[in-house]
Amino acid sequence: MQYRTDLAMERAADHPDIPGVQVINTQAGDCARCEVRIESEEAARQLQKPCGRYITFEIPPLHQMAQPARAELAQAIADTLQSLLPPDGDVLIVGLGNRRITSDKLGSQVVETLLVTRHLRGHLSQPLLDRLRGVCALAPGVLGVTGMETADLVQGAAEHAKPCAIIAIDALSARECRRIGAVIQVTDTGIQPGSGVGNHRAGITRETMGVPVIAVGVPTVVYGSVIIRDALRQLLDDYPDASEREAAAYALAQRILSQPLGEMVVTPREIDQLVAELSQVIGMSLNLALQPQLSREEILMLTNEGL
Amino acid sequence: MQYRTDLAMERAADHPDIPGVQVINTQAGDCARCEVRIESEEAARQLQKPCGRYITFEIPPLHQMAQPARAELAQAIADTLQSLLPPDGDVLIVGLGNRRITSDKLGSQVVETLLVTRHLRGHLSQPLLDRLRGVCALAPGVLGVTGMETADLVQGAAEHAKPCAIIAIDALSARECRRIGAVIQVTDTGIQPGSGVGNHRAGITRETMGVPVIAVGVPTVVYGSVIIRDALRQLLDDYPDASEREAAAYALAQRILSQPLGEMVVTPREIDQLVAELSQVIGMSLNLALQPQLSREEILMLTNEGL
Amino acid sequence: MQYRTDLAMERAADHPDIPGVQVINTQAGDCARCEVRIESEEAARQLQKPCGRYITFEIPPLHQMAQPARAELAQAIADTLQSLLPPDGDVLIVGLGNRRITSDKLGSQVVETLLVTRHLRGHLSQPLLDRLRGVCALAPGVLGVTGMETADLVQGAAEHAKPCAIIAIDALSARECRRIGAVIQVTDTGIQPGSGVGNHRAGITRETMGVPVIAVGVPTVVYGSVIIRDALRQLLDDYPDASEREAAAYALAQRILSQPLGEMVVTPREIDQLVAELSQVIGMSLNLALQPQLSREEILMLTNEGL
Amino acid sequence: MQYRTDLAMERAADHPDIPGVQVINTQAGDCARCEVRIESEEAARQLQKPCGRYITFEIPPLHQMAQPARAELAQAIADTLQSLLPPDGDVLIVGLGNRRITSDKLGSQVVETLLVTRHLRGHLSQPLLDRLRGVCALAPGVLGVTGMETADLVQGAAEHAKPCAIIAIDALSARECRRIGAVIQVTDTGIQPGSGVGNHRAGITRETMGVPVIAVGVPTVVYGSVIIRDALRQLLDDYPDASEREAAAYALAQRILSQPLGEMVVTPREIDQLVAELSQVIGMSLNLALQPQLSREEILMLTNEGL
Repeated sequence: MQYRTDLAMERAADHPDIPGVQVINTQAGDCARCEVRIESEEAARQLQKPCGRYITFEIPPLHQMAQPARAELAQAIADTLQSLLPPDGDVLIVGLGNRRITSDKLGSQVVETLLVTRHLRGHLSQPLLDRLRGVCALAPGVLGVTGMETADLVQGAAEHAKPCAIIAIDALSARECRRIGAVIQVTDTGIQPGSGVGNHRAGITRETMGVPVIAVGVPTVVYGSVIIRDALRQLLDDYPDASEREAAAYALAQRILSQPLGEMVVTPREIDQLVAELSQVIGMSLNLALQPQLSREEILMLTNEGL
Repeated sequence: MQYRTDLAMERAADHPDIPGVQVINTQAGDCARCEVRIESEEAARQLQKPCGRYITFEIPPLHQMAQPARAELAQAIADTLQSLLPPDGDVLIVGLGNRRITSDKLGSQVVETLLVTRHLRGHLSQPLLDRLRGVCALAPGVLGVTGMETADLVQGAAEHAKPCAIIAIDALSARECRRIGAVIQVTDTGIQPGSGVGNHRAGITRETMGVPVIAVGVPTVVYGSVIIRDALRQLLDDYPDASEREAAAYALAQRILSQPLGEMVVTPREIDQLVAELSQVIGMSLNLALQPQLSREEILMLTNEGL
Repeated sequence: MQYRTDLAMERAADHPDIPGVQVINTQAGDCARCEVRIESEEAARQLQKPCGRYITFEIPPLHQMAQPARAELAQAIADTLQSLLPPDGDVLIVGLGNRRITSDKLGSQVVETLLVTRHLRGHLSQPLLDRLRGVCALAPGVLGVTGMETADLVQGAAEHAKPCAIIAIDALSARECRRIGAVIQVTDTGIQPGSGVGNHRAGITRETMGVPVIAVGVPTVVYGSVIIRDALRQLLDDYPDASEREAAAYALAQRILSQPLGEMVVTPREIDQLVAELSQVIGMSLNLALQPQLSREEILMLTNEGL
Repeated sequence: MQYRTDLAMERAADHPDIPGVQVINTQAGDCARCEVRIESEEAARQLQKPCGRYITFEIPPLHQMAQPARAELAQAIADTLQSLLPPDGDVLIVGLGNRRITSDKLGSQVVETLLVTRHLRGHLSQPLLDRLRGVCALAPGVLGVTGMETADLVQGAAEHAKPCAIIAIDALSARECRRIGAVIQVTDTGIQPGSGVGNHRAGITRETMGVPVIAVGVPTVVYGSVIIRDALRQLLDDYPDASEREAAAYALAQRILSQPLGEMVVTPREIDQLVAELSQVIGMSLNLALQPQLSREEILMLTNEGL
């Protein structure tokens, strides 16, 4: 069975009482914070996600959040990011995905909002430098556009930048439509092969990169195949005994999944605006997490934002 | 029951033998051409589309079409457009939809490919002017962005430009996913209220504008609600006697449609590229139809395209 | 002699003591505010600008302004706008210029930041409606793209929207490079023929529109011809007696101005970012001026901005 | 004296009879082809350009070129590129510059038009693979956006892709306005430090990369300082004896260059469109040079262009 959701919280919800999985729900301002800890290889196998921590923030629709609530959300995510990052050293932020596909461009858009500082070394006065962590950023583009594995390009950059950690931003797929644009997942397990809207062929993980890799993602699509499969599963669950129905549903599934729907994505019509807003919030979270000595005001000014 | 498809061919397929509806299938190069003629008010009521001609071109995936086939397709559409247009007089082309929403920006993108000539009168030599039909174009933006009815803005422009006909370009919704980006519909009935991805509040028709209105559209989305409903209808159709199943399916439908999926749209992940390619082809069709005395080469040069 | 500056302050500086011209300099927070009042037809003829008020805000580089200073600037401009607007009635905002030319897209970009409300009438509760002024907005595109006079399209829209006033936003040309992106001009004289980066053919004024027209503009270019001419004039001014030099300079001017430079524009390399920032500030000014009962916070939320 | 032109042809024109410099003018269809060969270190020092070949194509305005002439131009550039490339082996194409600055985005826009093939190995049938050269591409972004030296990012990519040669695309500065968008320079000397609109800090050359580096560039700006300096130099050249004039001109130069003009760029108002068209032509040249076994038609289809 193929999952086609990148959210650990959705996988954990499907397997509620697995040994080796901890789920910790808390509240962070207006947001529900859900941490899934996968702590055994057996649990990892069942959930098809590697061992590690997966923190999910369920957020209200951004266009209904006033500025103080948005700032609070950004700070809550920043706090989680900071807890996963080494305290010192340069950080490389990687925006994954294809900047020409709306549902896949979250990563490259976040990169455009970042406060990049690594190159300022030697150009700024010492007091200011003491307050700035070195940050560099890259949106390398996808395999089909570059002809090179994204993981190779990130590794090439990391060999020169020598970061203490990598943060990778990516658009994700979810199982349930209501999660599109409505949750932000932070994990210390990096990017897995086959994950993301663009389906990365190779992983970007501590194993392959040699430094901790934190991944930040937001679901922007649900695959059509998931919707149909879940609808049918629901039908079967409700009426487990009707053998005829099972055959009917199975035949239906075959017919529908043989159509192009399976590979289609379900997305809100306003996905362009949604991705733009989420990129701003995630960018601010990263800037706050990486520059704890700067105020939100200073960051807005240095990134030319703010009205 | 709400249709949520803008394609007359899909509605006619649902009601195969209605009196007052003619369906004429022909072949135009690589494309199947299907003309639906709705000829009685009763038929119009049943199909929920006004009387008139609806010509649909089923096209192969554009990225698999070589240049000669694309040019042939553009010419076939141009021929149909020309047969619907008055032979002389200026034409106003209106690109409908929201240019900031990928699935809704077909209209505004087509406008950017047009050869606009109306303002050249008085600036060109007579022999060249004799070869050019007067064309003007507008992409007025949607109600939520302008605060004004699109129909009012088009009417305001038409009062000054005094065209002999209006051509409106719009993104449509279909019922079946395989039609997304795969059919181009041309009709002499104009734009109806409630149609299009952006759901126009007011119509742009011969009645409201005082001149013929031709509409050109391509489906870019299928509504989530349509998919679920059709899946269930299929289930019921296949097993019409099982009363228990009907209840099950009905309950399932209720549950699913109460989720946000109903308002979600299904779209290919590559919708951005698809809309860009379709806009090019439709723009070329319009240029060919409106400037029959110019060659394809001349049009490409005057619109700064062509390699 | 052709001016090729749209700034009244630059023209007044060239003709310092003309009767019928008042210049009033004040300070508005970090910005110098300069109001030029042209009060006689003779003065208007000499300055080649119609009678009326021209208020200019000289602003520090936006990327060096912290958020509170930006907000203060937006409020200062809003105050001036409000003093020029009728107290009640719908307002139509028009973004002029070509959205595909960076130096000319200020108008269309401002329109994208506006709080548009006119269409909400009948959809909102009375208490909220009582707080909202009706605003509609249009970015009609330029003559070369639409084939229609911009003034005609604005008039067509105004006939349906029936605003009590029109505000037109446009990119301007200046004489001195240091003014690019550094001043915002507000005037009650509307848009004159031949003005703007795109050189409007027809005016948008109280005379042609039947309601007051306020214009808001920012210089984004200096024409190459202006630079050369001013350099030579400076040379002649400094050494008025050397007759040979005059001839030399004149010959040089002829040679240089016959090259393409004259029609080139001088602009900062970062013009894209500059126009984006200015659009945000002007958009906020307009929103504040038109919705005095909403707070800055409410406006940011309703326009989906703010972090 | 600082040159601020990246065109070898302009430098050679300033130093017409230097030993060790060969200038070979030929005609390639509608284009004048000028090859400058710098063959001695002394000549390189005088022209401030390294030894090597610099081939410049002077092209007519693209919007006046019909399709056959454009195709011919692309083929002529392709022929030159091919003569500089190793006959076999993968090629890495690098688009330099800042994609958010119009005058600097040529490189990143060219990358979007490329036929990238390296990743298809193992996915295509042998006969097709035999016809395709391996091509990969990267638009890494500039130092201020990534915090990393572009040269380091290119090197990182090259270490994984192991190309036999690198082709770097960049926007250039010229000395004369009439060259903006009107010449394409191809050189086998790579990218020098301090060159390009974005002023690269480190070079991308055979020495730093270990493989041949070919650079392709088009001037998109002239620096304001260059214009003033050249105007004054002309004045001095014409009247070499008037000592007073020299002082006057010198004083003027000081005054003018102390203003922001010096750092401003001169550019056509239509720079956005110009860069888009040039990117298409250069992209096609690269595709033709790298895939000599594919026809222009096949390339257009595989890159989803062509009407």
